[in-house]
Amino acid sequence: MASHSPRLLSVIRRAFSISSSSLGGVSMVQGASRGIGLEFVKQLLENDDKERVIATCRNPSASTGLIHLKDKFEDRLRILPLDLTVESSIEASALSIKETYGRLNLLINASGILSIPEIIHPETTLNKVEKSSLMLAYEVNAVGPILVIKHMWPLLKEGGGNGTGRSTAVVASLSARVASIGDNRLGGWHSYRSSKTALNQLSKTVSVEFARKKDPITCILLHPGTVDTDLSKPFQRNIPPDKIFSKEFSVQKLLSIINNVKSHDNGKFFAWDGQEIPW
Amino acid sequence: MASHSPRLLSVIRRAFSISSSSLGGVSMVQGASRGIGLEFVKQLLENDDKERVIATCRNPSASTGLIHLKDKFEDRLRILPLDLTVESSIEASALSIKETYGRLNLLINASGILSIPEIIHPETTLNKVEKSSLMLAYEVNAVGPILVIKHMWPLLKEGGGNGTGRSTAVVASLSARVASIGDNRLGGWHSYRSSKTALNQLSKTVSVEFARKKDPITCILLHPGTVDTDLSKPFQRNIPPDKIFSKEFSVQKLLSIINNVKSHDNGKFFAWDGQEIPW
Repeated sequence: MASHSPRLLSVIRRAFSISSSSLGGVSMVQGASRGIGLEFVKQLLENDDKERVIATCRNPSASTGLIHLKDKFEDRLRILPLDLTVESSIEASALSIKETYGRLNLLINASGILSIPEIIHPETTLNKVEKSSLMLAYEVNAVGPILVIKHMWPLLKEGGGNGTGRSTAVVASLSARVASIGDNRLGGWHSYRSSKTALNQLSKTVSVEFARKKDPITCILLHPGTVDTDLSKPFQRNIPPDKIFSKEFSVQKLLSIINNVKSHDNGKFFAWDGQEIPW
Repeated sequence: MASHSPRLLSVIRRAFSISSSSLGGVSMVQGASRGIGLEFVKQLLENDDKERVIATCRNPSASTGLIHLKDKFEDRLRILPLDLTVESSIEASALSIKETYGRLNLLINASGILSIPEIIHPETTLNKVEKSSLMLAYEVNAVGPILVIKHMWPLLKEGGGNGTGRSTAVVASLSARVASIGDNRLGGWHSYRSSKTALNQLSKTVSVEFARKKDPITCILLHPGTVDTDLSKPFQRNIPPDKIFSKEFSVQKLLSIINNVKSHDNGKFFAWDGQEIPW
């Protein structure tokens, strides 16, 4: 049997993908154990019965939500362990996805750290700012997601919009309105805020390179609103109940942005309602 | 002898300061061993013969520039070792300044890391982005300066504009135009860029708290232009010679911004020519 070069295989795969959008998309959700990430996995699987989803989190066996989805979507859901703070685990995921699917059409960076008792807590004053919190927030909220984009980049180039209704592959990273410098009127939350601001800059920076290289990838940042999740729970008391969204609602809105993204949106920062947020 | 409470001493000191602006200002330049920081020290000492300057850097004995200035300005220059990555050394400097001067009128965060052979180098592509570079850049360019502001805060409140021609104390942190997300058209330099963007957000965040507490402190960010220093040397070949400033010129311009700052400038980001830079 003739051995095929990777390049030839890629050409064959691409030709096949282009001719059959019925193949469905391949999406990865990073930070999928609970909250918004888990809801993305659920809706992606439910919305399209050809969609295949790779869900990653640090410790899959502890996510009852993912285990439940795996029961229901046995064939189309793949769960991989990925620790954002360990680059080799990101590389291992990329290799595994490459071997099984050969492409990615959508990468959602959904992880985020705001508050862990005794370790990191949103600062109410400069006096409470600690080096360890800042560094942990940068590691998890900015560095981790950009390393995921780095290692998934070849798979996203391979995937583009093929097999989906989208014109390009999409990288959507969850940021937050508090990451906006121009919109910062309340102060506080130094670690979370500035780590998400760094993520904004990193996402913008890679979007410039993707555009220059004409890669079929659109890179956006998303503000999900204040969503009823474990992350926001300790801070919900200051927010009117009608301003707190369900996960279902927020993810519906965000998926609508993702599915309608155009290449001129590359590098932009959108709120759940599609409005652009100033830097 | 009656013992005076710190509060009473503070009132006496403030009354004395207000009545005698001839006292001169007390300025701290963090990252003063060479380049722009060293030039700030020099000009502050030369411009006003009552100005006292605290120059800090990691290893003062290795700075021939500071040693030379100390010969010339023996009484008015104080050199302190301060390692930005070690919070206790920042605290020790604050204590020393408190004991000798009791106040600060100006804090300049002049340190910055862009390129160190074998350790950190401005990235030309996402493929070259390394976790270790990102984390080092955040530690030195964002976390260090904000910890300095944290520990100097009480001294800056005490100082305000007293003894200077300025209406408030000033915290000026050196950022860079490449930190602007909105102005990012070239991409690359992921670590440096995003660390200075994080610094911008942190500076904005503390400026909001200073304003809310009516502290007599104005907090600004400065872009010095491309200045002929060790930091920019490896990158000067792509820049027209007339766009590369001398240290003397850039620092003159930046001191002019600092000396004319008004409280409504609090939280803003200025280029060397006084133009505001978008976030």
